[in-house]
Amino acid sequence: MTSVQSTYPEGRVSLREVGLRDGLQLVKTFPSTSAKQRWVRDEYAAGVRHFEVGSFLPAKTFPQFVDVREIVGTIAALPGAHGVALVLNERGANEALASGVAEIGSVVSATEEHSQANANRSRDAAIANVKRLCELRDASAHKPIVCAAISMALGCSIAGPVDPNEVLRLVEKCFEAGVDSVGIADTVGYAGPKQVGDLTRAAVKLAGSKPICVHLHDTRGMGIANASAALDEGARILDGSLGGLGGCPFAPGATGNVVFEDLVFLCESKGFATGIDIEKLVAVRAILRGEMPNEPLYGGLARAGLPRGGIAAKAA
Amino acid sequence: MTSVQSTYPEGRVSLREVGLRDGLQLVKTFPSTSAKQRWVRDEYAAGVRHFEVGSFLPAKTFPQFVDVREIVGTIAALPGAHGVALVLNERGANEALASGVAEIGSVVSATEEHSQANANRSRDAAIANVKRLCELRDASAHKPIVCAAISMALGCSIAGPVDPNEVLRLVEKCFEAGVDSVGIADTVGYAGPKQVGDLTRAAVKLAGSKPICVHLHDTRGMGIANASAALDEGARILDGSLGGLGGCPFAPGATGNVVFEDLVFLCESKGFATGIDIEKLVAVRAILRGEMPNEPLYGGLARAGLPRGGIAAKAA
Repeated sequence: MTSVQSTYPEGRVSLREVGLRDGLQLVKTFPSTSAKQRWVRDEYAAGVRHFEVGSFLPAKTFPQFVDVREIVGTIAALPGAHGVALVLNERGANEALASGVAEIGSVVSATEEHSQANANRSRDAAIANVKRLCELRDASAHKPIVCAAISMALGCSIAGPVDPNEVLRLVEKCFEAGVDSVGIADTVGYAGPKQVGDLTRAAVKLAGSKPICVHLHDTRGMGIANASAALDEGARILDGSLGGLGGCPFAPGATGNVVFEDLVFLCESKGFATGIDIEKLVAVRAILRGEMPNEPLYGGLARAGLPRGGIAAKAA
Repeated sequence: MTSVQSTYPEGRVSLREVGLRDGLQLVKTFPSTSAKQRWVRDEYAAGVRHFEVGSFLPAKTFPQFVDVREIVGTIAALPGAHGVALVLNERGANEALASGVAEIGSVVSATEEHSQANANRSRDAAIANVKRLCELRDASAHKPIVCAAISMALGCSIAGPVDPNEVLRLVEKCFEAGVDSVGIADTVGYAGPKQVGDLTRAAVKLAGSKPICVHLHDTRGMGIANASAALDEGARILDGSLGGLGGCPFAPGATGNVVFEDLVFLCESKGFATGIDIEKLVAVRAILRGEMPNEPLYGGLARAGLPRGGIAAKAA
């Protein structure tokens, strides 16, 4: 049994590299399995411990995730490394459980419009799906962590502005369904730091002893500012992708996830020790460039390197 | 006489577009005078009111600023528009005063090492230069605003980490010398939001009723997060350049100033009305692309556009 407390120790910041899943969600060409394994191992050597590894989605539609079981195995072989896989339905949940992955994520849209358009189901059906996932977890031998993410939680590409109280209602429903943690996702990068901070504060309060994960996209350049606000308001699990790999399905040409290496810099500069060596991390981008030469990579640290004398920080 | 209070109304955020000066500092090709004038006028039409217009530097070394007087004139002809020019010595100060520019900026390095290497003078000599500038202002007919910026205030490309108390000592000396406002510049983008917030809070307190300007570079992707922290701690004058135009002399290939249009989005999302129309502003980038096709432009708003339903904000 994987415990949330040992996976995401309270008081510490846990950064999850989601490039292998969210970063690859939209790509046309993608890395070989062995390149993915080097990607994981080299990041592990740089100090990364939390990885989103892929999705249990139909391999016909998403061939980039056909090797998800092997990546789950690669991570399981690394002491202290933690893998997260995404599932969207019961078939995927059963496959994920069978793979032995340490954490299973699912998604609930913040708006009815997006839920119907994106997943062809109501939000209530998505919550029921989360509940079923928790039941399957409880019946399983290894009992993985289950996390539900509220997508479009800070603005919806279909419905526009989203009422934070509506999001908090869904957060509550997910906890009632039995999840171990809830994610708040600014899927299309609509928010600024005030919105992210306000929602994080309320969600952290609601979650009590359970962790809130904040998943940000840098679509409008606010990613790092929003991460800073989330940290200020008590979020201790944040997602990012190496080089900001990954785009936005609702804004062609737009950037994807917040840049992981810049996120590490942010945390360290705020006094949160991440255990991650930024220069070693930046070097891993060579694997992505080699395997996906047409995918743009972003990030300030990769361009400019560390400051002379290192990262200025005082204990947060 | 130009008053600081009418130029930078208390309680409002004033955003200064510094592309015409800092953005052009390092470029090899630069816009024609008429293109610069279109740049200013189109930004004015988008709602921009504060412009850094150029430097009074030797035209032989900096041909991009040879037409600074004409740009000063262009801005003077636009009701409510405010121009700032940079000077580094008494010759430049006299030329700037003669041009009738509304505000004159000067620079003091935060470290002795950078002052000597960059300006070939001590910090005391730089402060004496600021004092002389204030005397010339007092003796002038139109009495422009004088602002001194502390460069490398959050980390130095030569000396490394910078003691904030040392910066505050220089801020105090600049006010004693008679300046109307002081700028804090993260010239090489070394800081995270905690450092920027801490220094801003202390400088704002020290400045009393006089304004503090915060000038940030996005070298390590922290620009918008740092701007957010500066706003949180009371800074109400912030610099940025359209498209993030301008690089970093100390990190080849690195990005320059914080992206102006993303800065507008940040402020609006935090409830600070800027009076600036982001879509009109983004359209001005076409002038930069046309005149300087080899200069990279950055920014999330230009790529992704505004969120559906507009910018979420509550009154700050």
